[in-house]
Amino acid sequence: MTVSPVSLASLDLDPAFALHRGGKLEVRSTVPVRDADDLSLAYTPGVARVCTAIADNHDLVNDYTWVSNVVAVVSDGTAVLGLGDIGPAAAMPVMEGKALLFKEFGNVDAVPICLDTTDVDALVETVVRLAPSFGGVNLEDISAPRCFEVENRLRELLDIPVFHDDQHGTAIVVLAALQNAARLTGRSLGDLRAVVAGAGASGVAVTRILLGAGIGDIAVSDSKGILYSGREGLNPVKEALAADTNRAGHKGSTEQALAGADVFIGLSGSTVSEQAVASMAPDAIVFALSNPTPEVEPAVAARYARVVATGRSDFPNQINNVLAFPGVFRGALDVRARTVTENMKVAAATALASVVGDDVAEDYVIPSPFDARVAPAVSAAVARQAREDGVARK
Amino acid sequence: MTVSPVSLASLDLDPAFALHRGGKLEVRSTVPVRDADDLSLAYTPGVARVCTAIADNHDLVNDYTWVSNVVAVVSDGTAVLGLGDIGPAAAMPVMEGKALLFKEFGNVDAVPICLDTTDVDALVETVVRLAPSFGGVNLEDISAPRCFEVENRLRELLDIPVFHDDQHGTAIVVLAALQNAARLTGRSLGDLRAVVAGAGASGVAVTRILLGAGIGDIAVSDSKGILYSGREGLNPVKEALAADTNRAGHKGSTEQALAGADVFIGLSGSTVSEQAVASMAPDAIVFALSNPTPEVEPAVAARYARVVATGRSDFPNQINNVLAFPGVFRGALDVRARTVTENMKVAAATALASVVGDDVAEDYVIPSPFDARVAPAVSAAVARQAREDGVARK
Repeated sequence: MTVSPVSLASLDLDPAFALHRGGKLEVRSTVPVRDADDLSLAYTPGVARVCTAIADNHDLVNDYTWVSNVVAVVSDGTAVLGLGDIGPAAAMPVMEGKALLFKEFGNVDAVPICLDTTDVDALVETVVRLAPSFGGVNLEDISAPRCFEVENRLRELLDIPVFHDDQHGTAIVVLAALQNAARLTGRSLGDLRAVVAGAGASGVAVTRILLGAGIGDIAVSDSKGILYSGREGLNPVKEALAADTNRAGHKGSTEQALAGADVFIGLSGSTVSEQAVASMAPDAIVFALSNPTPEVEPAVAARYARVVATGRSDFPNQINNVLAFPGVFRGALDVRARTVTENMKVAAATALASVVGDDVAEDYVIPSPFDARVAPAVSAAVARQAREDGVARK
Repeated sequence: MTVSPVSLASLDLDPAFALHRGGKLEVRSTVPVRDADDLSLAYTPGVARVCTAIADNHDLVNDYTWVSNVVAVVSDGTAVLGLGDIGPAAAMPVMEGKALLFKEFGNVDAVPICLDTTDVDALVETVVRLAPSFGGVNLEDISAPRCFEVENRLRELLDIPVFHDDQHGTAIVVLAALQNAARLTGRSLGDLRAVVAGAGASGVAVTRILLGAGIGDIAVSDSKGILYSGREGLNPVKEALAADTNRAGHKGSTEQALAGADVFIGLSGSTVSEQAVASMAPDAIVFALSNPTPEVEPAVAARYARVVATGRSDFPNQINNVLAFPGVFRGALDVRARTVTENMKVAAATALASVVGDDVAEDYVIPSPFDARVAPAVSAAVARQAREDGVARK
């Protein structure tokens, strides 16, 4: 079906459509091409000498091409924003947006790659074939549980950073915000009992990073309630999660588990009642992160909770992945890291939390995405940790 | 092996290396990202409305993303310049250069994609999976005869332009230059008997476009001499070429076939002796296109030939693909062509030849790559022909 110019004009009445006309990215030359002399360096015959040098020593590709600064933003379009499985074409505006944020916030060049397959083997194989062209791979909006296998296999097969942002970007920012919220309320992570609603990509990764950071206890729920060992019909990822969480032995609903809990982290698109929030412990921390509709209205949550965060820019404490991924990749690329270790993610979170510093307050547990200190702090911490972990090549 | 900073500094004494440090490309945003309002249009929540519209009507991806202006420059690194099979990493500087030329000369965004496979099935499959992200595919530096199968299969499978530049870019520019050389010497293509040295990607495509344009006779040679029907050990591509060429029935060497010939087109990296050029017909036309060493020294060829062209910028009449591919893709993308037809290639050549116009002369049968009239003339002709051929979607 072809859309007439008239209907495009009517779509463009929405400023989001008007802004998207013709796309949001371009590829530009960083070297001059004014005359034959320029061309003889940037292209034949000069380029042949550079090619020959790289053929003799592959590492030089990182010095004499853009590869070491360019990240593939790879999606299959199966879990796009809150929209679900909308396919590779419809996912493109999000991946372009991601690429734009990479450049603006991290000075990382990024190329949106929407793949016409949802098969795990095919996704892995395709990214492996693409790998010589990129210094890193940002996986995006691939549905769970396939996303776990895709990422794990690519991490094994490739010696460049592979990072599923829906998992680890969210996890880093949540950990940073929770560190500051705990500090604000005079507690350590080990003092906190948390409930995570959602066992998809972000729920799993948030839980894993909080476990690694020493959270007191954590229970995770999916649409059927809290995960516990032995619950029927769990996929392998949830089974492993059940084994590592829920020391309290909850078996009921998210809301039941919230009674007396210190922290709620909503990553599910479900809702949580006012009564359930009211049942939480004093100085409760509520991160209602579903977009565009938080699990509980922030104003309602604030009646009972000391700290409230959402995923939205129109409330305080926005948990936004853009606080993490540009700095994470900037740091990893700067030292040509072979991978992104767990330590590097925690270092990113700690650096992000530290930007808030002594200004920490109920409505300020996480910096603004436009705080210019964020990406440099995160990238420096990630680069330092990569060196400490022995995964830096530079 | 890691290269020390010292040795990089020594490489950088070569201005080609110095220019290539850090690569030649970047990806930039074309929309503002100054504050949360900008972000809410370019990213969530505004982007979700655009995604939803594309999910409902896939054609809108061409209006509201960069896809319809972005070309994948795809190589497997098996036939790079005159360097041969140097692999995907070492091919990257050339592919970056190509992308840079796409932007500078055609305002086409292009992404270099060097693939870590040389298997025909894998190459085809990978590009098909990548296709939702691109408005066209420029194949580059893939060795013959695999390049023919890769291109043919992708042309069948995809409904976007697929164009192997080593074949068709060269063919278009050669046809344009030959049209002007024939005009200069008062002949039509049908009056000319040509010998093409080289039956690789460019040799095959040049021969095919000249046959289509009505060349009088044409003989093609490979390293074993002139192709003729029944010659032993021919691959299917060469067999088909033998059947369609060499009506004169030559069976010997390139040089033997040149006796009395009107046109020599060298695309082989071989050499042709002064005596062989001397044996050509009056008003001979010599295109010695191998780089960096032409098949015959231009000064030597000029003793006998009326028109001499090379692939080099330091001699008159440079046959350079950059005269074709930016305009071809610009025109094809402008009308969202489903494919590049033979007619579109011939239209590109005719438009390119017409830029020279009445200024045609022995040392001016083809415009300079920096002639600003070239890309607009080529793109307009290609777009017009796409509409006439019924392959335009816009």
